[in-house]
Amino acid sequence: MSDVELVARKAKEASFVLASASTLVRNNALLTMAKGLESKAGRVIEENKKDLDKGRKNGLSDALIDRLTLDRRRIIEMAQGLREVAALPDPLGEIVEGWTLPNGLIIEKVRVPLGVVGIIYEARPNVTVDTAGLCIKSGNSVVLRGSSSAMNSNRALVSIIREMLKESGLPADSAGLIDSPSREAAKELMKLNGLIDVLIPRGGAGLISTVVENSAVPVIETGLGNCHVYVDLEADLEVAQRIIINAKTQRPGVCNACETVLVHSGIAEEFLPKIAMELEEKGVEIRGCERTRKIVPGAIEATEDDWKTEYLDLILAVKVVDDLDEAIGHINKYGSKHSDAIVTDSYKNSQRFTKEVDSACVYVNASTRFTDGGQFGLGAEIGISTQKLHARGPMSVTELTSAKFVIRGSGQVRD
Amino acid sequence: MSDVELVARKAKEASFVLASASTLVRNNALLTMAKGLESKAGRVIEENKKDLDKGRKNGLSDALIDRLTLDRRRIIEMAQGLREVAALPDPLGEIVEGWTLPNGLIIEKVRVPLGVVGIIYEARPNVTVDTAGLCIKSGNSVVLRGSSSAMNSNRALVSIIREMLKESGLPADSAGLIDSPSREAAKELMKLNGLIDVLIPRGGAGLISTVVENSAVPVIETGLGNCHVYVDLEADLEVAQRIIINAKTQRPGVCNACETVLVHSGIAEEFLPKIAMELEEKGVEIRGCERTRKIVPGAIEATEDDWKTEYLDLILAVKVVDDLDEAIGHINKYGSKHSDAIVTDSYKNSQRFTKEVDSACVYVNASTRFTDGGQFGLGAEIGISTQKLHARGPMSVTELTSAKFVIRGSGQVRD
Repeated sequence: MSDVELVARKAKEASFVLASASTLVRNNALLTMAKGLESKAGRVIEENKKDLDKGRKNGLSDALIDRLTLDRRRIIEMAQGLREVAALPDPLGEIVEGWTLPNGLIIEKVRVPLGVVGIIYEARPNVTVDTAGLCIKSGNSVVLRGSSSAMNSNRALVSIIREMLKESGLPADSAGLIDSPSREAAKELMKLNGLIDVLIPRGGAGLISTVVENSAVPVIETGLGNCHVYVDLEADLEVAQRIIINAKTQRPGVCNACETVLVHSGIAEEFLPKIAMELEEKGVEIRGCERTRKIVPGAIEATEDDWKTEYLDLILAVKVVDDLDEAIGHINKYGSKHSDAIVTDSYKNSQRFTKEVDSACVYVNASTRFTDGGQFGLGAEIGISTQKLHARGPMSVTELTSAKFVIRGSGQVRD
Repeated sequence: MSDVELVARKAKEASFVLASASTLVRNNALLTMAKGLESKAGRVIEENKKDLDKGRKNGLSDALIDRLTLDRRRIIEMAQGLREVAALPDPLGEIVEGWTLPNGLIIEKVRVPLGVVGIIYEARPNVTVDTAGLCIKSGNSVVLRGSSSAMNSNRALVSIIREMLKESGLPADSAGLIDSPSREAAKELMKLNGLIDVLIPRGGAGLISTVVENSAVPVIETGLGNCHVYVDLEADLEVAQRIIINAKTQRPGVCNACETVLVHSGIAEEFLPKIAMELEEKGVEIRGCERTRKIVPGAIEATEDDWKTEYLDLILAVKVVDDLDEAIGHINKYGSKHSDAIVTDSYKNSQRFTKEVDSACVYVNASTRFTDGGQFGLGAEIGISTQKLHARGPMSVTELTSAKFVIRGSGQVRD
């Protein structure tokens, strides 16, 4: 048996213990993990330093080095995150629905853990702690496969998590680390049907498409966000401007930032010069369609690729459209089904937009930046699903569960 | 663009029309399809005859020929099935949950169609009509890929369905047939992420594992059933016997039939001779563990493979176990997470069994044969999911939907 399979097999065994562990035991494990992280912060920082040194040697950018860095403040934040997850309601055991059949059989649909959650993720080591916390909370084992650049940090974090699980009376194997940076190890994980119940990729477009294309284990696709704001003919232009500036510039590097603005042709000449000026002040590069460039001469020519691109940067694609149909058509064709907004005072158009735009989160008169488990009030999130199966939009502990049927009878057989 | 992609692309376009179609329009389409099938039954029977002739030439077994056969009675049954699906409640538009955030944003989670459902299925042509009906009912387009042995029947059925969709004011492309029996066509379908939203394999173990291993499109795994009945020390042995005979012999060729019986060692000597006699009368071959064979000398020796096998036949594996732990461990190790039952009068054991057995449907004192959308009162079913993601157990129209977030604001932006 390979190392990868061994980790998964042990996680599967542990998952049966976890599934039967009480709310109190699981919550206590999270609080113990939080305390352990804080008291052993020195060990984490020391191991993290090895990753940072190696990263600097390999010429990682300052931004990536910053994402990789664990200092005392960040470790305390991670511990605090665990305490917040512990405080969330327990999703397990909920009786989702139930009924009695004419033959007397009583059917209940009961919320249960998924079993073993696999995570393949990139640089940030805080993902290690966040996801382990969400998985244990929801009664799942977790198998973690981080990136090689954070391997020492992840080893330290997972070893503390495992010690604390044991201290709380839960199996250490509830959290397992794939201790190999090879691509083969990741691919092997993707083939472990029956041991891994769901695989969640967290990272860039390349990682996500590799997992989606190669995994035999069911996948939840997360995170890619080519988000739109459509400014309708009947928009309050001040509101439109506030929303676009917020959605584009408040934090451009995240998946719920706006990448394309669509503007109704009837207000384009009034609106575009104003918004272009503020975008320019904020350092945003505009890539416009032909009609946009007639109104905003400074805009760069947009190509077909621009409509498809998640810039994650201070770049905005702008297109003038003739009506709501064209706007909805554009979003459904080029978008990533993440978050899209209409700015309008037309009731009818708001209704059509929310019904016809095929995205996880559809907004009327608000910034796309709100798509987030914390902002939605769901507690911490494990990712934002852009697929339609199982979960859509921000996923928290409930989305890490399944539901099984329990049927109680008194000897019924089928005719 | 290949033929397969073209069918999928047209189905995707049609799905936007379907998603906006009213309950009345979708239900009416189903009723029109039912009427069309009945009035054009002659055409279907004629085309079906071609498949039957070819099948006989190719030496298909009588059982397979029977499954392939469409006569007037079966066509009327299919039409009746469509009318029953039309009568189900509409799953679309349900507001699953909703709340208002402190900043005034109103969040609603609304039930919507998945988009395009792909089905890869084997011989029985009634699946063509059943699944098209369930998909249209739930606002989804459907792309059908049947087996080559039913190609003429499927062509006739889909052409009638398409005519009737058009007659009802819905796009004919809401139902598309992959008109090629090649494996390449099926594999291409499995790669159409973004066009196909979910792929459901319906057929034997080979088909299902091929789809699970090769599909980049999200899959719902269905149908394999290695189901168990465990007779506890505290079982009412008459009830146990009735349940086992029903679960094994009432219809042995289906996924919810029982394949392995586990018997507590404390009652094995009393129970096994009785049940063995009735099983023998019903023509069931027993494959037993060593202890079983000491009590039932006629039993064949069971191998490791027997614990894993879905016989779909009048064969039953029997194992004597020493306690509930061993029974639960065996089921979780060898079962297919479909349907498993305990027969017991012990409250404590019933509670442990339902909690710890990791299957879609867990029974106390009832036959596993009840795992079925119709029996559960869900209406028609599109399959029985044995995975944990998205849907578990019998799937009906609600399981063919997703839920999206609609967020209404008044200009909110994120700090």
